[in-house]
Amino acid sequence: MLYWFDLMGVGVFAVSGALAAMRAGLDLFGLLVLAAITAIGGGTLRDLLLNRHPLFWMKDGRYLAVIVLAALATLLSGPLSPSALQALKIADALGLALFALCGAEIAEDCELPPVPVLLMGTLTATGGGVVRDLLSGQVPLLLRQDIYATAALAGIALYQLLMRAGLARNTAFVLGMVSVATLRLLSLHYGWQLPVPQLPS
Amino acid sequence: MLYWFDLMGVGVFAVSGALAAMRAGLDLFGLLVLAAITAIGGGTLRDLLLNRHPLFWMKDGRYLAVIVLAALATLLSGPLSPSALQALKIADALGLALFALCGAEIAEDCELPPVPVLLMGTLTATGGGVVRDLLSGQVPLLLRQDIYATAALAGIALYQLLMRAGLARNTAFVLGMVSVATLRLLSLHYGWQLPVPQLPS
Amino acid sequence: MLYWFDLMGVGVFAVSGALAAMRAGLDLFGLLVLAAITAIGGGTLRDLLLNRHPLFWMKDGRYLAVIVLAALATLLSGPLSPSALQALKIADALGLALFALCGAEIAEDCELPPVPVLLMGTLTATGGGVVRDLLSGQVPLLLRQDIYATAALAGIALYQLLMRAGLARNTAFVLGMVSVATLRLLSLHYGWQLPVPQLPS
Repeated sequence: MLYWFDLMGVGVFAVSGALAAMRAGLDLFGLLVLAAITAIGGGTLRDLLLNRHPLFWMKDGRYLAVIVLAALATLLSGPLSPSALQALKIADALGLALFALCGAEIAEDCELPPVPVLLMGTLTATGGGVVRDLLSGQVPLLLRQDIYATAALAGIALYQLLMRAGLARNTAFVLGMVSVATLRLLSLHYGWQLPVPQLPS
Repeated sequence: MLYWFDLMGVGVFAVSGALAAMRAGLDLFGLLVLAAITAIGGGTLRDLLLNRHPLFWMKDGRYLAVIVLAALATLLSGPLSPSALQALKIADALGLALFALCGAEIAEDCELPPVPVLLMGTLTATGGGVVRDLLSGQVPLLLRQDIYATAALAGIALYQLLMRAGLARNTAFVLGMVSVATLRLLSLHYGWQLPVPQLPS
Repeated sequence: MLYWFDLMGVGVFAVSGALAAMRAGLDLFGLLVLAAITAIGGGTLRDLLLNRHPLFWMKDGRYLAVIVLAALATLLSGPLSPSALQALKIADALGLALFALCGAEIAEDCELPPVPVLLMGTLTATGGGVVRDLLSGQVPLLLRQDIYATAALAGIALYQLLMRAGLARNTAFVLGMVSVATLRLLSLHYGWQLPVPQLPS
């Protein structure tokens, strides 16, 4: 079942990449590239850093199929209604949560210490978006504003604490995911921001 | 013989990187870096994703030697005549074609499925140019306009279909290459473009 | 002892990343990311290209600890006095020198030929800064101006020549380091620049 959620997360991230490509004025090829990189870029960076080969999307063709379908659906959909945009934000928060926890579990299975596990989970969930922003000529949004990567970090840390406190892995996983998504959606709703340090002058 | 063509392709791509560095106002070190990344960046990304080590240019010093020579030649050449620019475009199309098909064959030899083979061939031929554009502060050209990566995709797909139809690998390779270069040059000549999707408003 | 110097170099590079993040208007998360990437990005790229796993900062938690401490210290320090800025420049030149020579030795131990050793040492010392500049929306400084990567290249080349001339590795290492730092600081003091090639028109 996690596998189907995973494919759904890939689809949602691909939609976000396709929308970014349209905003940046890219052509059809650029749109497909941005959809793919947003969806599987983070997991690919994680696998390169962890030396996990072959890469997950090379073995299982469904990832690329979902990306192409999601990109084409974005292309062909008419203007997005406010409620569709709302649904996309919720789906994106769920994708963030799922990728963060899945990435952390994969890093744990590679026997990494806790802090690198935290970083690999966050990279899985956010690395694709960073490369998407770079390729469309933007300073990556998550380095500048919003509680996005920070929500992933917090939820993975909670998962790790709950495991250490003796909870079953599955339970800790679900609670970690819920906390990533909740923190992300609350911060969107209330406009929470991290402090922006100023250069002393 | 393919090997000598390969080195020639490296040289042409290095010239393209050196010209981009001069347009971006980089210094001599930046010019050498951009020449190298344009020439061997795509193959390096492919080898990292496929876990092929040591990297091809670490084992065989001729790649780096050709890059330095091509960069210096670009630096020392006077203004490029219209016919020299024309020759460069044709050489670049041949380089694109050769790198695409060679990259695809390498991915096949790693026993990848057909779609990842297609992507690895295209990455080999175009990844260096993408990093060149990022380093010189541009949104990568091939995500925005021209039939460039698309020509590589189409030619590799033809190669794969011809192989499946029973042709010998060498024959399919040559026909794939010819089709990449032809499609690229025709699209340049006629100004063909992919559609640029518009955000619905 | 080299190990403690290494951690000090990581700290200095992390400060430089944190300062760049503040100049680019990034938030607290972006500041930590830029500090980390500047400090360990070059070594990470080197290890990926050389297929060295697990990555050095995954095994030894002190690297990440030093980065977080250095980033927080930067954040909490008041305005930097001219003499503090001067000390930072000297420490940065020493970090450049140390990372360049350490990276070269690591590449030698992987049995790379001399020219790739030169490139891997330079990448170790400068790759993090390049990614830092990309993530903060700048064309990488070292491709445009200053004798920075060139100082690393020159010092590693000297180290290689001295080894070939029969010097002990440790002696050659120290002389190579001294020459990187000296060349860097002299070029800063006198404003030396590499030529910026002009496009013939």
